[in-house]
Amino acid sequence: MAARTPGAEPATPPAATEGPVLVVGAGLLGASIGLGLRHLGVEVWLQDASPTAEAVAEDIGAGRSCRAAAEDRVPEPGLVVVAVPPDVAAETVARALEEHPAAVVLDVASVKEAVLEGVRARGADLTRYVGTHPMAGRERSGPVAARGELFTSMPWVVCDSGSSSPAALAAARHLAVDLGATVTFMDAREHDATVALISHLPQVMSSLLASRLQETPLHHLSLAGQGLRDTTRIAASDPGLWVQILAANAGPVVAALHGVREDLDRLIATLEAPRAPGARLDIAQLMAEGNAGRARIPGKHGGAPRAFETVTVLVGDVPGQLARLLAEIGEIGVNLEDLRLEHSPGQPVGLAEVSVLPHRRKELIEALQERGWKVVQ
Amino acid sequence: MAARTPGAEPATPPAATEGPVLVVGAGLLGASIGLGLRHLGVEVWLQDASPTAEAVAEDIGAGRSCRAAAEDRVPEPGLVVVAVPPDVAAETVARALEEHPAAVVLDVASVKEAVLEGVRARGADLTRYVGTHPMAGRERSGPVAARGELFTSMPWVVCDSGSSSPAALAAARHLAVDLGATVTFMDAREHDATVALISHLPQVMSSLLASRLQETPLHHLSLAGQGLRDTTRIAASDPGLWVQILAANAGPVVAALHGVREDLDRLIATLEAPRAPGARLDIAQLMAEGNAGRARIPGKHGGAPRAFETVTVLVGDVPGQLARLLAEIGEIGVNLEDLRLEHSPGQPVGLAEVSVLPHRRKELIEALQERGWKVVQ
Repeated sequence: MAARTPGAEPATPPAATEGPVLVVGAGLLGASIGLGLRHLGVEVWLQDASPTAEAVAEDIGAGRSCRAAAEDRVPEPGLVVVAVPPDVAAETVARALEEHPAAVVLDVASVKEAVLEGVRARGADLTRYVGTHPMAGRERSGPVAARGELFTSMPWVVCDSGSSSPAALAAARHLAVDLGATVTFMDAREHDATVALISHLPQVMSSLLASRLQETPLHHLSLAGQGLRDTTRIAASDPGLWVQILAANAGPVVAALHGVREDLDRLIATLEAPRAPGARLDIAQLMAEGNAGRARIPGKHGGAPRAFETVTVLVGDVPGQLARLLAEIGEIGVNLEDLRLEHSPGQPVGLAEVSVLPHRRKELIEALQERGWKVVQ
Repeated sequence: MAARTPGAEPATPPAATEGPVLVVGAGLLGASIGLGLRHLGVEVWLQDASPTAEAVAEDIGAGRSCRAAAEDRVPEPGLVVVAVPPDVAAETVARALEEHPAAVVLDVASVKEAVLEGVRARGADLTRYVGTHPMAGRERSGPVAARGELFTSMPWVVCDSGSSSPAALAAARHLAVDLGATVTFMDAREHDATVALISHLPQVMSSLLASRLQETPLHHLSLAGQGLRDTTRIAASDPGLWVQILAANAGPVVAALHGVREDLDRLIATLEAPRAPGARLDIAQLMAEGNAGRARIPGKHGGAPRAFETVTVLVGDVPGQLARLLAEIGEIGVNLEDLRLEHSPGQPVGLAEVSVLPHRRKELIEALQERGWKVVQ
């Protein structure tokens, strides 16, 4: 099925996921899905290899623990959501398809082709299976980190197995929409190639960069600016999860990494003879290619890349100061497209960089200055 | 001279930069220094190879154009600040030392050893020269982007030439302090090794990553999350400037890049045989090394790394909503340590991730919920 951008997703009638839903795997995603469905009044049952995780998930209200309810008869689910780690997703999906012959079975692993092939290899019924990927991770994991709104306004990719029934695809789409996500359809291969570039490669590059800082003296790191903070933020992610993601999507990730290595080798060779003819042109070209790639990332709301203009304002580092600024921007009636705080090593003063539509910038600056704000320009 | 952390910088008596100051190079840094000094009432004169840049800098109030004043006699400066591109910094400094035999001459290039060696090679008087580096760039450049507060609460590195006189060092320190910066002393070699890791390497990694996105279909990029946005933000930087920086600091940058390449080669080899024994351990180790490096980056105010806890709140994408939230956080009396907005592809709802001190988190969540905010947890 052709990919569709979130923007192209048509408005849907109030979608309805019918319970009972069985969530297998009570980690961050499973528990968050359970919480979200419970908020909608859907009956949710939880299963996890870890009795503790299963119990915690029940305690936070993500659904009922199958173990705890062992004596009742757990109802036969109409929908099974498999939210286990990627390396056991395929076998768990296959088992669920077999144990629940009437149910639609979805998984939410962040790699899709390996799971699909694993399910196929087990001879399971692909008409009732749909692979999906809610693109809403967090740096933390486990049921305690779960939140029902985890998926709000995030993309949720739905992958036809090639034989998925219309009913199964509808169930996948309803689940995503019910939880506030924006649905995009892709096949598994296209999904994996996409996340290799927009998610897995950034993770690898951030980790490679951050690992260079292991020996750096702290008083050197204290000079670090926002650039280093931004480029290394996701390097804090959970190795256990990423091992599985990278191993399961090794092919597309390696392809991207080979491209990186070619550029890196070229740059190293150039910088080893920085006075050689053409050296500066090589460096400039690499930087310009970076400019070009960056410029293609869509802006807020998934729209086309859009150049906002920024207004930078001095704020004191005391409670309420930034609030007063934003309140006055609200009064002025200019919409804040984005906001970045510049950290202030050594001093209790911050710079708030406010992004606004270009044609509102001048007006905003004047209005802020009238109100006594120090606008930095 | 031993490096000192910004925190270790003693409170200084109101420092005073005595005019007239001659700023050579009216780009972003030169014009910003001029603006900042003019705000303090210091007499500033401007010189730039480009008559236009020189005139623009004068028009924005960064000082007086030497060209325009050609008929007056431009006064003999006590301080010359050389703010020209790195590849002409050394010769410009040497000329200034010769033309102004009584003046202290500083440069503000973002590489220091190449400049120092260039000045030394020209047989100039190193007692009156001090290399400095205000670590406060922007993604934009040129005098139009200049702002007097560019240096507010940013680090400013001061490098003894090895023969710099106490008076010259004091002049450098006063300039930085007058402009609101936080002074750190290092020698040129230590400075270059430091910025190679905390500034130049992140730039290269971000550019290498972003350049992979040149061929990615836009509807794939529309799935991009905050991780890709953060890791590629600085890839938008000016190639022209970075060519000079990377060429002038090639040695330390290449050393860091060799480390990256070793890790990258190891990772590629591992991912090419992801089922080989030990493969997963290799990947986990790389990720864990990234965790370790990231954890060493100091938090806000250049203090030791400090784990803030986050509270995530749902906000509508309408003027004033975020403001109301922050205003109420102010009323509650909890200080905002950091704020991150999560962009919302496809939907007009945002998540505001507020960082607070761990012991204030519970109180803040309860207070916000009482006030009807949807706290996501």
